[in-house]
Amino acid sequence: MADPYATMLERIKDVGRLSAIEALLDWDQETYMPSQGVEPRAEMMAMVAGMRHEQATSSEMGDLLGQLTDDDGSDPIRQTNIRETRRSYDRSVKVPNELVKELTHTSAMAMEAWAKARSESKFDGFAPHLTKLLDLKRTQANCIGYDDDPYDALMDEFEPGVKTADVATLFAELRQRLAPIVQELAEARNKPDFSILERHYPQAEQEQLGRGFVEAVGFDWQAGRMDVSVHPFCTSMTSKDVRLTTRYDEHYMPCAIFGLMHEAGHGLYEQGLEVEHRFTPMGQATSLGIHESQSRLWENMVGRSKPFWECNYARTKELFPKALGDISMDAFYRAINTVQPSLIRVEADEVTYNLHIVVRFELERALINKQLEVADLPDAWNQKMKELVGIKPSNHADGCLQDIHWSLGAFGYFPTYALGNLYAAQFFAAAQKALPNLEDQIRAGQLMPLREWLAQNIHSHGMRYGAAELCEIVTGSALSTDPFIEYVEKKFRPVYGLD
Amino acid sequence: MADPYATMLERIKDVGRLSAIEALLDWDQETYMPSQGVEPRAEMMAMVAGMRHEQATSSEMGDLLGQLTDDDGSDPIRQTNIRETRRSYDRSVKVPNELVKELTHTSAMAMEAWAKARSESKFDGFAPHLTKLLDLKRTQANCIGYDDDPYDALMDEFEPGVKTADVATLFAELRQRLAPIVQELAEARNKPDFSILERHYPQAEQEQLGRGFVEAVGFDWQAGRMDVSVHPFCTSMTSKDVRLTTRYDEHYMPCAIFGLMHEAGHGLYEQGLEVEHRFTPMGQATSLGIHESQSRLWENMVGRSKPFWECNYARTKELFPKALGDISMDAFYRAINTVQPSLIRVEADEVTYNLHIVVRFELERALINKQLEVADLPDAWNQKMKELVGIKPSNHADGCLQDIHWSLGAFGYFPTYALGNLYAAQFFAAAQKALPNLEDQIRAGQLMPLREWLAQNIHSHGMRYGAAELCEIVTGSALSTDPFIEYVEKKFRPVYGLD
Repeated sequence: MADPYATMLERIKDVGRLSAIEALLDWDQETYMPSQGVEPRAEMMAMVAGMRHEQATSSEMGDLLGQLTDDDGSDPIRQTNIRETRRSYDRSVKVPNELVKELTHTSAMAMEAWAKARSESKFDGFAPHLTKLLDLKRTQANCIGYDDDPYDALMDEFEPGVKTADVATLFAELRQRLAPIVQELAEARNKPDFSILERHYPQAEQEQLGRGFVEAVGFDWQAGRMDVSVHPFCTSMTSKDVRLTTRYDEHYMPCAIFGLMHEAGHGLYEQGLEVEHRFTPMGQATSLGIHESQSRLWENMVGRSKPFWECNYARTKELFPKALGDISMDAFYRAINTVQPSLIRVEADEVTYNLHIVVRFELERALINKQLEVADLPDAWNQKMKELVGIKPSNHADGCLQDIHWSLGAFGYFPTYALGNLYAAQFFAAAQKALPNLEDQIRAGQLMPLREWLAQNIHSHGMRYGAAELCEIVTGSALSTDPFIEYVEKKFRPVYGLD
Repeated sequence: MADPYATMLERIKDVGRLSAIEALLDWDQETYMPSQGVEPRAEMMAMVAGMRHEQATSSEMGDLLGQLTDDDGSDPIRQTNIRETRRSYDRSVKVPNELVKELTHTSAMAMEAWAKARSESKFDGFAPHLTKLLDLKRTQANCIGYDDDPYDALMDEFEPGVKTADVATLFAELRQRLAPIVQELAEARNKPDFSILERHYPQAEQEQLGRGFVEAVGFDWQAGRMDVSVHPFCTSMTSKDVRLTTRYDEHYMPCAIFGLMHEAGHGLYEQGLEVEHRFTPMGQATSLGIHESQSRLWENMVGRSKPFWECNYARTKELFPKALGDISMDAFYRAINTVQPSLIRVEADEVTYNLHIVVRFELERALINKQLEVADLPDAWNQKMKELVGIKPSNHADGCLQDIHWSLGAFGYFPTYALGNLYAAQFFAAAQKALPNLEDQIRAGQLMPLREWLAQNIHSHGMRYGAAELCEIVTGSALSTDPFIEYVEKKFRPVYGLD
C-alpha cells in the first residue's frame, strides 16, 4: 500500500505546479502577451484555476488527509506539509462550489462596474455590486466558520491565524500613536523639497540604477528576472524562477527606484525558499503580511535610509546630472522621506500609508458586520480620511473607489499591508541587534549579511511557522507597534529638523 | 441529455487549451526563463503533457465519439471536428501507456547521448540508443497499424494521410530532376559572391529590417510578437497570440532576415486560422507539410525573389552602408540565391535542401524496415550524401549526427520539409495565376493580395481538408514536382548567367 503522506505530497505538488502555471499565464499577460490574446488567455486561466481547485479539494485528498495526523512530532517538514494542506483543504471544502462560482462571476461583473464607476467618479453604479459581494462574502464567512467575528474568516485567507480583535487593537494603537507624529511633521517649518524627485529622470538610467540596486540586495538573475508592466508586481513559479516588474515615470523617480527595491524584497523572500520543497507548503511563503514585511524592509528601512544613500548618492548624481547636479545628498535624502497627507494609498509615504490602511480596515469590517450600509460608504470614507489622514477627497475616484480590492471580493486583504510595515520594523530592529555593524555595512554597500540573516531566519522556513509564531521566534516578542513607532520617530524628526 | 457533440467540443477544447499552455511554457523557456528554472519547468511540462494525454484518451472521449458519426454531411465544421478528434483519439488509444512512457524515457536518454555523441563526433555512444528507439518506433507503428509500410504509421503523425509510396515516388523524381540542375549550377563560371553576406551587419539594423519585413507580409503585432531565442521557431497559443523568434549573427545576414521571413510565414498561417474555432481541429493547421509550405513560400518565393529586392534593396543598402555600399542590387540578389552543395541541412540553399531531405527519408525508412543496420548508418549517410548532394562529410557531427530529430524519436518528420517546398511552389504558381499582377505587386511592396489569397484558400480552412485534398482544391491538381522544378529552373539559371 502506498504511503498516504507520499501520495498526498504528489497530489499537493500537482496543485503547486498548477499554481505556478497560473503565475506564468498571469506574468505573461502583464508583460509580453499580444493585446488580442486576452480572451483565449482568460479561458486558459479559468481552466487551470478549475483544475487546481478540483485537485486541491478532491475526495482522494480528503481520504489521504483522513489517514494522516498533524501531531506526529517527529519531522517538522512532514508536519508542516500535512497541517497546511489540511488547513487549505478544510477551508476549501467548506465553501460550496456554487458559492465559489457565484463569487467568481459576481466579482467579474463588479470589476467591470468598478472600473466604470471609478472613471466617472460615480459610486452609484458600483454600489449594487458591492452589496451583492458583501452578501456572498458573509455567506462564505459563515461556511468557513469563526469564533468572534466573520471578518476573521475572511482575513484568514491572506493572513492565516490572525484575529480581527488583535488587528483592531494594533491598529487603534497605530492611529493613536501616529496622529501626533503626522501633525508634528505637518507643522514643521523646515520641510523637504519633494519636487526635486519630479524633475526629468531618463528611463534608461533609472533602469540601470534600479537593476543595480536589485542586484546589490542579492537578487539572483540566474533564478529571476525583471521586466516592465503597467502595475508592478513580483511573482514566482519556484525559488528558481522569480520575476519582478516595474514601470517607469520619467517625472516621478520614486516609482521605479523604490518600486524595484520593494519588489526585490518580495523576490528575495521567494528566492530564499528551499527549492527542494518546491510546490509544497514547506516551500511557500507563510503569509501576505510577512511577505509585505520583506518588501517594505528593503524599500524603506534600507532603501530610504541615510546609510544606503551615503553609499549610493554619488553614483546616482552621476547618472542624473541634470536632475541632481545642484542637489545635496541631504536634500535628496530628505526629499525621498517626505511625509505628507495624501489621498491615494499607493502614493502615500511610509508614515501616513498605515493610516490609509486603518481607514479601509475599519470600513470593510463595519461593512461585513452590517454596521455600515453600502450607501453610506462614500461619506464614511471621506469622514474617516479627514479624521485619520487629515485630508478629504473631493471626488469618489480619489476616495472609496480608488482601490480594486473590494471589487475582487478581497475583504480582509488590506490589513496585511500595515501588518507588513509593523513586521518589517520589528524584524529590522532584531536584525540590528543580531548584526551590530549593520548600519556600517549598508553604508559600505555590503547588503549580504542582512540578506543572509533574513534568509536564515525568515525565508527558509517556508510555512513551518505561522506569522505570529515566526515573529516570536525571530524577534523574541509578539508583534507590537513599538518598533515601528520608534523607527518613525528616530528617522523622521531629524528629516524635518525637529531634533 | 447533453448533446454529445457539444460535450466532445468542450473536452477537445480543454485538450487544446492544455496544448496552448505547453506552447507558452516552451516559448517562455526558450526566450525569457531564468537559467535555473529548467528543472521545475520540466516538471510542469511533464504534468501538463500527462493531463493532455489523459484527457485526449479518456474513456469519456471514447464514449462520446462512439455516439457520433463522421458522415453527418450537413455541417463541415462539425464533420471536421468529429473526424479529426476521432483520428487523434484512435491513434492515441492504440498505443499502450507503457509504450508512451518508454518512448519518452528512451528519447530523453537518447537526446543526452546524441548531444554528447555529436560534440565528440562519435557515433558509437548514440548507436545503442538509436537501436532501442527504432525498436520502440516499430512497435508503435505495429500498434497503430498500416497497410503497406510501417513508415506510413509514423509519418502519419506529422503529415496525416500521406503514404510512403507516394513520397518515395515524388522524392525519386526530385532526386532525378534536381541532380542535373545542381551540377549545371556547380559548373557555371559566373558564380554569385556569397561572401558579401558575411560582412558586418549590425544587429540593431538587422532587427529593424527584419521587423519591417514581418510587418510588410501582414503579420499582426496585436496578435503576435517577435523575440530572440537560440533556435528560431514559431509557436502559437491561438490565432490571436502567435510568437516568432529569431537569432542574430552579425556576420551571416541571411540567418535573421530570411529566418524571420520563414517564421513569419508560419505565423501568418497561425494568424489566418479562424479564432472562433480556437482549441478545436477546425482552428488548427492541417499538416506540417502545409505549414512548411507557408514558411518557404514567404522565405523563398517572395523573400528571395527579384521583385521583392527591387522594392527593398535601396532601404537595405541605407541600413548597411558599410556592408552593401559597393554592392549592386543584382550582386546582392545573386548572393542570397547562391546554390552550393553543403554538409549541414539547416544552412542549405533552397535547391540542394531537398536533397538533404531525400537522404534522410531514404535512410530512416530503411532503418525502420530493417533494411539498414544502425551500425552501418554513418557509412550509408556519407555515401548517400556524396551520391545525392555531391559532398561527403569528414566527420559524423557534420554527418548523420547533425540533426536532433532521430534522438527525439521523430522518424517520419523530415519528409514534411521537402513536401513543404513542393507545396510552396505549387501554391505559389496557383497564386500567380489567380493574381496576374502578383510580381508587380511584390515589386511595389503590396504583399496583402498574396497574403489574403493564402488566408482565404489555405489558412482559414483549418483541418477541414487534409494536405492532399487541400492541394487539389487550391491548385487543381495533385502534388507534383513540376511547379518546384519549373520554379528552380526559371529562377536559378539566370542567377548563374545560364540563359
